[in-house]
Amino acid sequence: MRSRILSVLKAAGSSYISGEAIASELGISRTAVWKHINELRQSGYHIDSHSRSGYRLQDSPDCLLPEEIKIGLDTEIMGREIIYFDDIPSTNNQAKVKARQGAVEGTVIVSEAQSIGKGRLDRSFFSPHGKGIWFSVILRPPFLPQDAPKCTLLAAVAVAAAMRSFGVEAGIKWPNDILCQGRKLTGILTEMSAEMDRINYVVIGIGINVNILQDDFPEELREKAGSMAMVKGELINRPSFFREVLRELDICYREICNRGFGALMDKWRSLSVTLGQEINVIGINESFSGKAIDIDDDGALLVETEGAMRRVLAGDVSIRPKLQ
Amino acid sequence: MRSRILSVLKAAGSSYISGEAIASELGISRTAVWKHINELRQSGYHIDSHSRSGYRLQDSPDCLLPEEIKIGLDTEIMGREIIYFDDIPSTNNQAKVKARQGAVEGTVIVSEAQSIGKGRLDRSFFSPHGKGIWFSVILRPPFLPQDAPKCTLLAAVAVAAAMRSFGVEAGIKWPNDILCQGRKLTGILTEMSAEMDRINYVVIGIGINVNILQDDFPEELREKAGSMAMVKGELINRPSFFREVLRELDICYREICNRGFGALMDKWRSLSVTLGQEINVIGINESFSGKAIDIDDDGALLVETEGAMRRVLAGDVSIRPKLQ
Repeated sequence: MRSRILSVLKAAGSSYISGEAIASELGISRTAVWKHINELRQSGYHIDSHSRSGYRLQDSPDCLLPEEIKIGLDTEIMGREIIYFDDIPSTNNQAKVKARQGAVEGTVIVSEAQSIGKGRLDRSFFSPHGKGIWFSVILRPPFLPQDAPKCTLLAAVAVAAAMRSFGVEAGIKWPNDILCQGRKLTGILTEMSAEMDRINYVVIGIGINVNILQDDFPEELREKAGSMAMVKGELINRPSFFREVLRELDICYREICNRGFGALMDKWRSLSVTLGQEINVIGINESFSGKAIDIDDDGALLVETEGAMRRVLAGDVSIRPKLQ
Repeated sequence: MRSRILSVLKAAGSSYISGEAIASELGISRTAVWKHINELRQSGYHIDSHSRSGYRLQDSPDCLLPEEIKIGLDTEIMGREIIYFDDIPSTNNQAKVKARQGAVEGTVIVSEAQSIGKGRLDRSFFSPHGKGIWFSVILRPPFLPQDAPKCTLLAAVAVAAAMRSFGVEAGIKWPNDILCQGRKLTGILTEMSAEMDRINYVVIGIGINVNILQDDFPEELREKAGSMAMVKGELINRPSFFREVLRELDICYREICNRGFGALMDKWRSLSVTLGQEINVIGINESFSGKAIDIDDDGALLVETEGAMRRVLAGDVSIRPKLQ
């Protein structure tokens, strides 16, 4: 209801709209309107009120509150439920708890900050308050656990596509780093719980550096990490961009559930900055160089080395441009 | 310590052994001996005491208490920790909780009964008090999530091999049913938590019908389910058999961690009752008939049908002897 009241206020633009008009449009009492307006104010919305004219939205807070996100969100699955935190240890951990408790597919956990944001392989992920989009989404895909690793390609494709529609020429470095101007803009951590022949749930954690400025980054990240704002030279409206990411995730996910991974793989290829490049593969037990040729049906990277084609599975390697 | 006191008592056989002798052998005080003896009595051990001669073990309870199981258990990984319950909803669920809390690899959860024992695909599993071995073991394998489904083959091989060494000519019906004389003796449910390129933990749940008699089974299971006692015509010593299962699991698991799945696959083939048989494959979306030829490196069943070889992945099918 708060979301619907916000919609009405936003539709009215700079005009006042009476409590009576809002009440009648939404089929609730004027007292209920008054109550919700006060709650919105407590969340940081500046709502002007005038005894004869009614209410007018002056200013929205820069936040990812569900009522803000839901306005104009036209997804079928992603964001069916949005659970919001101001600060949380890790959205992925919270999502796993909710998933075990039976949360519906598409439930989103979003937080303005993470105190112990998690990256792959126990790495930490920098998630400062209000400067990015740190969220996790719960999926319950119908495919076999063997196919779950491709969810990570799904996330990369959706985020890169959303960035491009916001004018940030992002590319995907295999398997799921999002790069622009040589800097990493996004971290993705996909986790799953499964039986051997059925997925219980998949949690895709996505952290997007939206409005972080270079000096905000800790020293050790300053050369490698970037943000959309750094690329664009201006701050990005986080709620709008978040809706775009959810929309892309929704489209890609419904596509793979209905028609398999083919189209996703092709989108991945078209967004890739790895394919065709000379690369170094740095594995746990070995390193080698070669040319990245393609990904196969499992999402493995095919690398042409001297004489042989090698198949690199997710997680075995990191990849970087070959030094000249 | 309780386990070590039990060992000393068992070694003494029908002779009495003094509290002083036990204390000196184990390097503890006589008061400590007395305290542990009383605890063992509370667990159901009948320990005779005599003021001059000392203690004598008269009778052990028919139970799977850790101190009982640990006597003579010569595993490296399986059973490092054994957590015992008299009754529990589901050992798999409990194991998942313990795994999330950081339980060491090889931790075993065992219960005399399960009130909501779980089978594959939300089926229930009959687990009456004291008549079987209902347990789950926590593993943290070094291989990729894509290989985790083969843990289910590991469990089947270990249980079938243990049964054979107890004189029960068990065979494996693909992928992991244990059959003898056409009846199912075991249920296996393997679950995992993973990132896309790393397994957090695997929980293998194994329910073995040891001393269930035909009339103990509910009506709907009476024709299809069996037990080791029904095959042998006598009750089986559960602790001894449990140790044998843990020993086989330990050997097979260390083999796959050190040298890959080749030897396990071969053991599976030699214990299989499916390969070479005409079978019906009953899938979610389709059914077909053919001859089971082999399993491939992923553990998928290869079925020869008219003109073509079909590959059946775990969980897509159930298989039964072709009706004549």
